[in-house]
Amino acid sequence: MSDIRAIVALSELEAADFFPGPMWGELERLLPGYRRVQLPLSRPEDWVRLWRETPAELLVSAWQTPPLNGPLEPDDVKSLRYVCYLAGSVRKLVPRELVDRGLIVTNWGNTIAATVAECALMLILMALRRASYWALAMHREGAWKNGAPTTQSLLGRRVGLHGFGAISQQLVPMLVPFTDQIQTYSPHVPDDILARRKVRRATSLEELFSTSDIVVELAAATPQNLHIVKESHLRSIPAGGVFVNVGRGCVVDEAALLRVAREGNLQIALDVYEQEPLPPDSPFRGLPNVTLLPHLGGPTRDRRRDSGALALKNIRAFLKGDPQEAVINLDTYDRST
Amino acid sequence: MSDIRAIVALSELEAADFFPGPMWGELERLLPGYRRVQLPLSRPEDWVRLWRETPAELLVSAWQTPPLNGPLEPDDVKSLRYVCYLAGSVRKLVPRELVDRGLIVTNWGNTIAATVAECALMLILMALRRASYWALAMHREGAWKNGAPTTQSLLGRRVGLHGFGAISQQLVPMLVPFTDQIQTYSPHVPDDILARRKVRRATSLEELFSTSDIVVELAAATPQNLHIVKESHLRSIPAGGVFVNVGRGCVVDEAALLRVAREGNLQIALDVYEQEPLPPDSPFRGLPNVTLLPHLGGPTRDRRRDSGALALKNIRAFLKGDPQEAVINLDTYDRST
Repeated sequence: MSDIRAIVALSELEAADFFPGPMWGELERLLPGYRRVQLPLSRPEDWVRLWRETPAELLVSAWQTPPLNGPLEPDDVKSLRYVCYLAGSVRKLVPRELVDRGLIVTNWGNTIAATVAECALMLILMALRRASYWALAMHREGAWKNGAPTTQSLLGRRVGLHGFGAISQQLVPMLVPFTDQIQTYSPHVPDDILARRKVRRATSLEELFSTSDIVVELAAATPQNLHIVKESHLRSIPAGGVFVNVGRGCVVDEAALLRVAREGNLQIALDVYEQEPLPPDSPFRGLPNVTLLPHLGGPTRDRRRDSGALALKNIRAFLKGDPQEAVINLDTYDRST
Repeated sequence: MSDIRAIVALSELEAADFFPGPMWGELERLLPGYRRVQLPLSRPEDWVRLWRETPAELLVSAWQTPPLNGPLEPDDVKSLRYVCYLAGSVRKLVPRELVDRGLIVTNWGNTIAATVAECALMLILMALRRASYWALAMHREGAWKNGAPTTQSLLGRRVGLHGFGAISQQLVPMLVPFTDQIQTYSPHVPDDILARRKVRRATSLEELFSTSDIVVELAAATPQNLHIVKESHLRSIPAGGVFVNVGRGCVVDEAALLRVAREGNLQIALDVYEQEPLPPDSPFRGLPNVTLLPHLGGPTRDRRRDSGALALKNIRAFLKGDPQEAVINLDTYDRST
């Protein structure tokens, strides 16, 4: 279909997860004569040799792909026109100069939004039901309920979404079977997007936190949002409330979150942290009112194919000279973590 | 509103949970001159004295209410016409003879269905995401993910519901944001109920298990259903599959479930067991592929008011001579556990 010089640099597992079944065949049809690089490389210097032998225009890449700088010189990759990255942040792979000089870079874009939203719903239900506490007590302490454990339902509750990007938009229909009281604080989202989903606008972060039984943190990790969620916000969540973070750890003042968590009144569920991996001695570990996951939000292994499908679409567009989706520009590059 | 002689025999907590806020006032308006019995009784013999002093026609009752036999003679409760029970099984409270002689008995009926369905959805998501394993590892082992943990999404999956009563009917709309591939095995459910919800009928239990990625056990605990789910069914769930039980433990051959669980391939989530409380030394405890809860399905504490609302409606109907909802007859009495 094309004589374009392409490198597909993925581990076995990445290839199988992102392009399962017939999708791999589709990739091969689009890129006849592509060069397959099995990762990890047995000899790191092969990465430089490869680029000198194969001045590729297109690179299909993921977490295991070695960076496009370091031992590589800018001249080694000057043939490159498009980096199709299958995962999220490209910062470790692509130096800023390449984006600046006009290299096309795409990532998984919004294909992960539905699985992150699903993780948010699960954490809301777990925090309300105290499922993490019980799972641990049942497995490690031979426990059974005694009297009437404090369990809560999502039915009829007020849910507040901080941020209204792709994940929040996927989360709303998952919440609708439980409640019609959904509001968001997201200063730049247009009214019609909220109206279409019957989501109310909160006019401040203070209003969002103080009038939601469940607050879901999904604001972008912009410089303005750094530590924007403060102790006063967390303390204003009504009694019996829940705080879930499946967005970015740095949006929350984590020291304040810990102080509130230690008092035991707020049910908290976290998938993301300021420092990842979460240190083994993190004081969040062991708190019975806190649910902890190791950044498993999205995409689940079985849905990596959604990123693969976007990649195939983007590669097809690239071959035709059409524009791509989920393009990284300097602005999104600088904001990514 | 009525001169009926009524006893309201509840603990403080039961009264507050089932009739929160203005609902208690509504109960008092319906039953002027009712006798309030604070439970537990400081002297058990007061229960007999009470009935001899107050030959009540109506009893409002819950888990803490002492039984209507034992030290009580049949003659002591011969005035009784209606037992409004706020919880599930009335067997400990009401002797069979009283139901047989025409006493009206109601329980929480289908008011718990939505919260049990919510618990089922939570357990499905937890089993797919292996959230119990991670919650435990994060809290007790200082863990973080290493490589690509096996996580799965509900998106696009085939869900099989064994039984299609009130809980399954509440669960379907909660599943719809994730998948349109829902089927059930429920021999007696009419076609139109399935058609209205776009649920496919599986023609056998074998078909249900072998063609569903996720099987949710919700069949009634009838004598015919005792141990109806066998090892062969559990083993026929496709690879990567999930088995959730939020119905009744006795429907599953639990020894077979344990054998399958120990092999670690099937993700299992249980809220109910053949023997409850689950013994402290149960071999299910500690298995990393098994999520365990101590029968927290429903109703959650905050939704006990739904049973209170049904009780108020039933009491109003009783006072007018109209029929009640969620009436226990000899058939449902004999089937309850």
